[in-house]
Parts: sequence; C-alpha cells; structure tokens
Amino acid sequence: MINKLTLIGAGLIGGSLSLSLKQAGYVSSVVAYDTDQENAQTALALGVADEVSEDLEHAIEGADVVVIAVPVGAVEAVAKSLVSLLRPEMVLTDVGSVKGGVIEAIKSAFGELPENFVPAHPIAGTEKSGAAAAFNSLFNNKRIMLTPTETTSSDALATVKNMWQAAGGKVETLSVAKHDAIFAATSHLPHLLAYSMVNALTSIDMSEEIFTYAAGGLHDFTRIASSNPVMWRDVCLHNREQLLSVIDVFEKDLDQIREAIDRGDGDYLFERFSQAKKTRDTHEPVKK
Amino acid sequence: MINKLTLIGAGLIGGSLSLSLKQAGYVSSVVAYDTDQENAQTALALGVADEVSEDLEHAIEGADVVVIAVPVGAVEAVAKSLVSLLRPEMVLTDVGSVKGGVIEAIKSAFGELPENFVPAHPIAGTEKSGAAAAFNSLFNNKRIMLTPTETTSSDALATVKNMWQAAGGKVETLSVAKHDAIFAATSHLPHLLAYSMVNALTSIDMSEEIFTYAAGGLHDFTRIASSNPVMWRDVCLHNREQLLSVIDVFEKDLDQIREAIDRGDGDYLFERFSQAKKTRDTHEPVKK
Repeated sequence: MINKLTLIGAGLIGGSLSLSLKQAGYVSSVVAYDTDQENAQTALALGVADEVSEDLEHAIEGADVVVIAVPVGAVEAVAKSLVSLLRPEMVLTDVGSVKGGVIEAIKSAFGELPENFVPAHPIAGTEKSGAAAAFNSLFNNKRIMLTPTETTSSDALATVKNMWQAAGGKVETLSVAKHDAIFAATSHLPHLLAYSMVNALTSIDMSEEIFTYAAGGLHDFTRIASSNPVMWRDVCLHNREQLLSVIDVFEKDLDQIREAIDRGDGDYLFERFSQAKKTRDTHEPVKK
Repeated sequence: MINKLTLIGAGLIGGSLSLSLKQAGYVSSVVAYDTDQENAQTALALGVADEVSEDLEHAIEGADVVVIAVPVGAVEAVAKSLVSLLRPEMVLTDVGSVKGGVIEAIKSAFGELPENFVPAHPIAGTEKSGAAAAFNSLFNNKRIMLTPTETTSSDALATVKNMWQAAGGKVETLSVAKHDAIFAATSHLPHLLAYSMVNALTSIDMSEEIFTYAAGGLHDFTRIASSNPVMWRDVCLHNREQLLSVIDVFEKDLDQIREAIDRGDGDYLFERFSQAKKTRDTHEPVKK
C-alpha cells in the first residue's frame, strides 16, 4: 500500500500506472509533476492524478514512491533536480525502455547510485501518448522487468515489485545488459523498421495510391510508427551499441533475401521464409 | 448468378471465395481441383467445395467460371493444362498477388491472351493457408483489384466483377504496372521485412529469451511471417524488379537512420520519426 505516489511525467505509462493502482485501492494519493501544463491539466481532469503541481519540491514532499515516467533522454535533468529533494525513505523508480542509459543518468546526477533506486521497464504500451491515452488495464498480465543495480536495497526492490503486482503486472528481474540487448532486438528494432517503412513508402512515386491501397498487413506492420518520436529518439540515443548491432544483423539478412530475389533463387527464398514461419508459429503468443 | 464454378486450388483464398458465394446464394455448384489430395478432402468435408475431382477435364466441364487460386509460380503449369479444356464461353480468372507475372504465364501457355481471361487480386488474406483456413466473410468490404488486359472482353470483365461483388468485395480496376508497383511497396516488402526480422532474431544469441520477452509490437509486426512460404517465394520471383526497387528505397532510409544513431544525431531521428508518425496518423484506417 502506498500513501503518496509522485509521478514525474503523467503520460501513457505513468498515467496508466496511477489509474491501475487507484483501481486496485493500492494508493491513497497521486501527485503529478509534468512540464507540459496542458497534459498536467488533462491528467487532473481525467482523475489520472489527484493533484498536479508545477513545484517539484511540493510534488515530492512526503512521497513514499517517486516514479520518473519521462522519455529516457529527459531522465538526467529530472534526476539532477531530485538530488536535493529525494529523502532516504522515498523509493525512486523509472519506466524507461532502456536501462543502461537510465542508470548512467541517475549515477551521473547523484554521484553514486542511490540504494533506494530501482530501475524498471513495464513491457506494455500503445502507439498513443499523453495522459488522455492512459487506462487502468494497460499492465494486466504484462511483464514488468526490474533490473536492480548492485546498490539497490531489498526493501526498495520489494516496494517496487509490490507496486507493479498491484498494478496487474508480472514482475521479473533481469540483468541490465541482457535487458538492453533483448529489447533492442524485440522492441527497438521493430520500431525503427516501422518508421523506415512508412518513410520509404512516402518517398515513392504514387505514395498517395500506396496508402490508399495498403493491405491489412501494412497497417499492423506500421502501427508502431505512430509512437511518440521523442521517446524513440531517446531510446536510439541511449541504446546505441545494442541497436547498431541488431540493425546490422537484420540488414545482413535482408541483403541476402535481396540477392536471392535478384538472382532468382527460389530455393533460398523458400528455405528462409519456411524457417521464419516455423519460428514465428512456434512462438505464437497465446491468444488473449 | 453462377451455375458451376471450378476452383483450381481450394486454399484460403479460393476456399473463402467459394464459401462467400455460397452464402450469398450466388453459385449453384463449386467443383474443386487440388493437387493436394488431403486439402481437397478437407475442402469437401468442410463444404468449401460441393465436389472434388482429380480429373481436371471433368472438373472444368460445363463451368461458367474457372478460378485459378494457386501460388503465382504454379499458374503457368495450370494454364498449360487448361489450353485444350477451356471453352470460349467459360470465364477464366485468377487471384494472384502479382499481375504482370500471371498475365505472362497465361500468354505463354495460350500463345495469346484469351478474351475471356480477367486477371484479379483480392486484397484480403490472413497468415493462415489451406481449405481449413477459409471463411465466408474474408472479402467483406475488401478491395478486389481487376487488371484487365487489352484483350479482356467486357462480358468476361462484368462476370468477374459481379462475382466478387457477390462475394462481398469492392471491385476496382487498375493498370498492371501500377498494381505491381503499389503492392510491391504495401504488401510484398512488409512480408519480406517480417520474414527477415524473425530470421534475424533467431540468429542472435539469446534468441529463446528474445522470443520469451517479445513485446506486443513485435507480434503484430511479425504476424505476416507466418504466411505461406511458397506463395511469397513466388511473389518475389514474379515481381522481381518492383521488389528490388522498393527494397533499395527502404534500405537507404534505414541506413540513414543507422548512421544518425551512430553519430548520435537526435535531431535527425526526431525529424524522421515525427514525419513517419504524421504520415501514419494521416492514413490510419477507419476502425472496423
């Protein structure tokens, strides 16, 4: 049970965390601090937050848990302003899609990693953003990855774990390096491909007709290209090495497909497509 | 109204055409010819066809409409066996995703393009294949592209148009060249990217963990990698020029993104992602 939760950033993820904790009766009061005043007012109007404040000190005061829920690139600036405000009895956590970059930002701001800091990444989202997109079932049965640091205290870890379980999530822990490698491949790369796909289509003659005649496959494929550009810019900049590595693996595979098409090698294409189908069918998620 | 329809290939598309015409009361009898005897028996058992025959001559006899619904690469062999059987009063049509290649195959088999041949491509499908995957609402409100040749008679065109409207589709006509360019970009390329994406993930260390932790975006993104490998091999081989061209456009865009990540150019990434989001949001399909 949390008495006061402070949300720094009341967007899709932070807002949905608030709504799911409220629905579970797990939090008494949620105070939101958001540099976007319009979004802050939306959060207040929709009950995503009980109170919004433009004063970070007031927003933090007396909080049990402080959740940084801003794009990864904004974490360091937020952390710097928290240094003088965060009390040892408060638990600090985040929701960033990249964990190495966030941990570096916190370390850089605080000088060392606070014991009460728990890096976290809920594997949930939609292509929408902002408080208006938040909803209370976003995390139901979704994986929540915690990547505790060497200094993270067991008490802080338990607080964050219990919070996410109350929000409906399935909590797991993972090393930072594994986390960032896995999500570069499964989440960051697909977003880049979707963005590139849409931009490539735009640059082709007949792009209007292309979008008019787009088949269902394309719409599923490019849905994630509607995602928040700031968030994904920051992911790219903060998970650079891992992303470059998976882009290279992907481009090598696509180049081989391209060469097979060029030389008319049906056997190669059939073998590669069959292998992909087999893999995809084996890992088909259980229908919800 | 069609008295007898002959289906050469009782898979997802042919089978769903049969079921939708039957539901509309638009066809009296559907006879299926399928070289896969197990699939033929499934088609019979599920009522996808009223009769199945291993004898093409018998299957064709007295047909009003003959639908070739096999992978594009198999069209030429089918067409060759039809030359001596097809009567001038029968209408011949197909369902291939590539139109230039199919038209060439028909011309090659018949020596010239028959007046009663109407190339067609229903823009509908799922990642499943075979008679068991067929269902009667697959074409509801879906676009059906007809690409009549210079020799296609207006009577044959009207017959195929009426058939697809009865099946629930929205019929449009388009030139062959435009068709093949548009679908290379909107359908063929996304399938290649999904296949490559899955294969790339498989080749990375920790691929089991990668699939375990796959987020929702990846599942939507790779759904089409479950599609029929034979069909897509044939599409690649028969729409070669157009596909190579769109792969090059895509790879150029992805290379630029890769370079921006490498040099840490957040402004470039933000601009490209914002542009893609704007385009995707503008062309968001109406929710069904």
